[in-house]
Amino acid sequence: MQWTVYLSGEIHTDWRDQLEAGVEANELPVRFTSAVTDHAASDAAGDVLGKESEPFWRDHKSSKVNGIRTKTLIEQCDVAVVRFGEKYRQWNAAFDAGFCAALGKPYITLHDETIVHALKEVDAAAMAWAQTPEQVVEILRYVTTK
Amino acid sequence: MQWTVYLSGEIHTDWRDQLEAGVEANELPVRFTSAVTDHAASDAAGDVLGKESEPFWRDHKSSKVNGIRTKTLIEQCDVAVVRFGEKYRQWNAAFDAGFCAALGKPYITLHDETIVHALKEVDAAAMAWAQTPEQVVEILRYVTTK
Amino acid sequence: MQWTVYLSGEIHTDWRDQLEAGVEANELPVRFTSAVTDHAASDAAGDVLGKESEPFWRDHKSSKVNGIRTKTLIEQCDVAVVRFGEKYRQWNAAFDAGFCAALGKPYITLHDETIVHALKEVDAAAMAWAQTPEQVVEILRYVTTK
Amino acid sequence: MQWTVYLSGEIHTDWRDQLEAGVEANELPVRFTSAVTDHAASDAAGDVLGKESEPFWRDHKSSKVNGIRTKTLIEQCDVAVVRFGEKYRQWNAAFDAGFCAALGKPYITLHDETIVHALKEVDAAAMAWAQTPEQVVEILRYVTTK
Amino acid sequence: MQWTVYLSGEIHTDWRDQLEAGVEANELPVRFTSAVTDHAASDAAGDVLGKESEPFWRDHKSSKVNGIRTKTLIEQCDVAVVRFGEKYRQWNAAFDAGFCAALGKPYITLHDETIVHALKEVDAAAMAWAQTPEQVVEILRYVTTK
Amino acid sequence: MQWTVYLSGEIHTDWRDQLEAGVEANELPVRFTSAVTDHAASDAAGDVLGKESEPFWRDHKSSKVNGIRTKTLIEQCDVAVVRFGEKYRQWNAAFDAGFCAALGKPYITLHDETIVHALKEVDAAAMAWAQTPEQVVEILRYVTTK
Amino acid sequence: MQWTVYLSGEIHTDWRDQLEAGVEANELPVRFTSAVTDHAASDAAGDVLGKESEPFWRDHKSSKVNGIRTKTLIEQCDVAVVRFGEKYRQWNAAFDAGFCAALGKPYITLHDETIVHALKEVDAAAMAWAQTPEQVVEILRYVTTK
Amino acid sequence: MQWTVYLSGEIHTDWRDQLEAGVEANELPVRFTSAVTDHAASDAAGDVLGKESEPFWRDHKSSKVNGIRTKTLIEQCDVAVVRFGEKYRQWNAAFDAGFCAALGKPYITLHDETIVHALKEVDAAAMAWAQTPEQVVEILRYVTTK
Repeated sequence: MQWTVYLSGEIHTDWRDQLEAGVEANELPVRFTSAVTDHAASDAAGDVLGKESEPFWRDHKSSKVNGIRTKTLIEQCDVAVVRFGEKYRQWNAAFDAGFCAALGKPYITLHDETIVHALKEVDAAAMAWAQTPEQVVEILRYVTTK
Repeated sequence: MQWTVYLSGEIHTDWRDQLEAGVEANELPVRFTSAVTDHAASDAAGDVLGKESEPFWRDHKSSKVNGIRTKTLIEQCDVAVVRFGEKYRQWNAAFDAGFCAALGKPYITLHDETIVHALKEVDAAAMAWAQTPEQVVEILRYVTTK
Repeated sequence: MQWTVYLSGEIHTDWRDQLEAGVEANELPVRFTSAVTDHAASDAAGDVLGKESEPFWRDHKSSKVNGIRTKTLIEQCDVAVVRFGEKYRQWNAAFDAGFCAALGKPYITLHDETIVHALKEVDAAAMAWAQTPEQVVEILRYVTTK
Repeated sequence: MQWTVYLSGEIHTDWRDQLEAGVEANELPVRFTSAVTDHAASDAAGDVLGKESEPFWRDHKSSKVNGIRTKTLIEQCDVAVVRFGEKYRQWNAAFDAGFCAALGKPYITLHDETIVHALKEVDAAAMAWAQTPEQVVEILRYVTTK
Repeated sequence: MQWTVYLSGEIHTDWRDQLEAGVEANELPVRFTSAVTDHAASDAAGDVLGKESEPFWRDHKSSKVNGIRTKTLIEQCDVAVVRFGEKYRQWNAAFDAGFCAALGKPYITLHDETIVHALKEVDAAAMAWAQTPEQVVEILRYVTTK
Repeated sequence: MQWTVYLSGEIHTDWRDQLEAGVEANELPVRFTSAVTDHAASDAAGDVLGKESEPFWRDHKSSKVNGIRTKTLIEQCDVAVVRFGEKYRQWNAAFDAGFCAALGKPYITLHDETIVHALKEVDAAAMAWAQTPEQVVEILRYVTTK
Repeated sequence: MQWTVYLSGEIHTDWRDQLEAGVEANELPVRFTSAVTDHAASDAAGDVLGKESEPFWRDHKSSKVNGIRTKTLIEQCDVAVVRFGEKYRQWNAAFDAGFCAALGKPYITLHDETIVHALKEVDAAAMAWAQTPEQVVEILRYVTTK
Repeated sequence: MQWTVYLSGEIHTDWRDQLEAGVEANELPVRFTSAVTDHAASDAAGDVLGKESEPFWRDHKSSKVNGIRTKTLIEQCDVAVVRFGEKYRQWNAAFDAGFCAALGKPYITLHDETIVHALKEVDAAAMAWAQTPEQVVEILRYVTTK
């Protein structure tokens, strides 16, 4: 069985690449899906439908277009990994975690110890908390191949 | 019909009180539910089950005890209001919003214009974005009594 | 048992009043719910959240505020009555019918014979097609009191 | 991943062909499904089960046979595109949109600006409103390949 | 807690009355619901919507009107009792049993030993098989008051 | 897309063979599934688990073993065909129809006109009523290939 | 809001009484439900339907009658408490915990530290692990009244 | 169609191997899935995320990591086989059975006659009780190939 793993959250570091490299190196039966991670493209996702003068509506349109992709991919994944970095508020990552929780979809959080208290509700509903991509790869290796 | 409205998010300002006052003044058929908003009590919710030396596990235990309440009340509400303030990361508020979205439970966000871009995914799945408690009361008045 | 019946569709004739009068005259255990039927108020439902210059976004905001009410009431009803008149396109009525169909919520259509062909998909998923409010009252009397 | 996109609505213009051409030209991983779009065949779908003298029952039988196909394909699609033209009432398109909304299935509406107000509830529950097939292709390209 | 028990099947003997008498005599917290059991009224349930010349369509209309009631009451009951008599085919009783099974709604069958083999699939999905109304009352007494 | 069609009911005539021949002749993208149709084997399905002295329990065991297959295949089919013959009571066929109805799974009934009245509830929840296997093949051809 | 709490497991000690006393002493808005806890009556629940010579079938019949009650009450509770004692295997308690987990129903386990390792999967899906009834009362007090 | 069968419970005897040999010998279209059955590895599944000093939390972390696998595989299987041995309490096997029951997933229990009474609730919700792996193979052969 091939496992589909959705990657949510931070787009400013290379954690996705590290996970992909780890999965490849271990030849794991894992396929990753993700939101569009090109920040500028993501913000402009709705522009093709007509320019907006109000920033709120531009964001609204683009977020909904992105939602076609993210909602579908989350519902079709087997497991999600939700990454929180030090910078930015990353409310969309917490939103995705809540979405997974309500669907009963297992997810792993990936973040430093420094933000443990702020993330306590998100971690409490997770199946695991990892601090490094290597740990996530290990968990995936155990879950999918043991 | 009485409407049950779950209030999620920020606990450092008096927005909940303002909503309750507005609902009372308008005699709306609305009942509010909420997480425990006493910050210290919330952090200590699991302590009765035994002290923990690791902060992560203390948070974990308390968050799960809080989860008995929040998960149940969200699933039983008709509408949720999710409040984001300027301070703190409030990932639990975004988590609740994602939880509502996956359940198909309508929610209203309440936050300033300054954080519109950071909240674009959360707002995109909401039924309304309000900037003041008065606006939320107006929406509730319209929805429940018109 | 009291039955909750959601009334969807046309707001330009008095069919809702006729149903209510019929239910009262027959002392049926039926409670009606409905979208806001004041046309101007409905179109302006979102204005309290801030004026919009673009008609599309004004409609969008108001429709979502109305959706808080309509989605909740449809999900909580036992039966729906969906009325199509001669005038206007009333796509929202057909939308509500589709919403009921997907939820497995039984609904009765109420419309003239002249538009039978145009409504064939909507009628095919309905539990009954009535041509007059009196017929709907009779069906409700049979279903709720026999 | 291949995406399955259900096309609902207007059968009198070539918008389906334009979408297919656009998808092919862009080599998108998209497969389209649809109701039977041959108008006469669709109206006669139930005739093989016996002729009916009453137009209502002929429509009823045919619509149910068509429903075997449309209900199944909508439930199995990832995204739907719902097209509203200037002519006819197209209540079945609005019905399909409501069906998608209740299932939590994302859909894109495709229609001119002239009918924005009449479609406000249908658009409010959509993930995007497009005015041309080219825009839909662009959205699909973004969602499925970025 | 009051229990709602749906009674399905045979309308030609007084088993419903016996159950009601038993529940009353034992003062059980049980409320019964049922399809309309007046055979002629049930067959004519759709006549108010217009006479039909084809027997199939008269049956169709009436069955759908009856379905508004039966579907709703089955979905809202806690337990169902499904009665099969010696006479008639009572396919609607078996239909109701299958409906309960798919919903995960517990049901008790009530029938003689002579038809055990013919009912083996229906009994296999039941929570109990009773041969007399007294036994059903005993089960309800045990389940609701012990 | 390949369609999976579950065949339920009568095992004493060759209607299943006729459907298969028709599908093959028309090269339809249809795959059939079914309960075990070898009557003696079906009655003895549970014997391997130990002989029973009571006929009721032998039936019970065998029906449950058969249920592993039938429940799974019905839940995985796209459409069901439910056949009622003149002989026997075939309560399991009506049970399967009710099971489909509660799941929202479309089904076609196949039976003679003589038993229309007895099957009115089963037909009312069906998407089509056919009198011959040829008609069913035609419906499948229309639904799957048009 | 009144909370309904289902009590599952061990019937040989007075933990249920202690919970009830604690809830009463604290005047908590909590109502308890439970399986029948009279061991002999529970084992004999099916006897009224006819005596069985095979112990397996006597157990089978009684367990199914008990299941009408337990399945219904678990599905209707807000929270469950699952108690494991030192004696007996109490597989039904673990079964109830798994049932709750699949339904997304929050539950609290109540057991000594000595059996922590054997219960690790059951505890991992729980919202809290308590060692004494007093702790459970405290959790309920916090969850329902804070 | 290939059937996916999840194997739950006892890891100290070779019943899984016997099932696999039987399926291979009979060339059945069956694929088995399972929790990790290496006891030491399973207990240590969470160690990669950081060592724990408290045995409860080590178990907790490992059980949750195991849960990513077991929950996913149970939800994706067609049938489960749940094995109870003489030794150990095997609460996780009963937990899996309850999980299957709530999902409506059919399962077969595999255990000796000596523990029939203790397992009566677990067996009552099962589709079959087998005493030997050979019997399970026979059931699978019947269900998947007849």
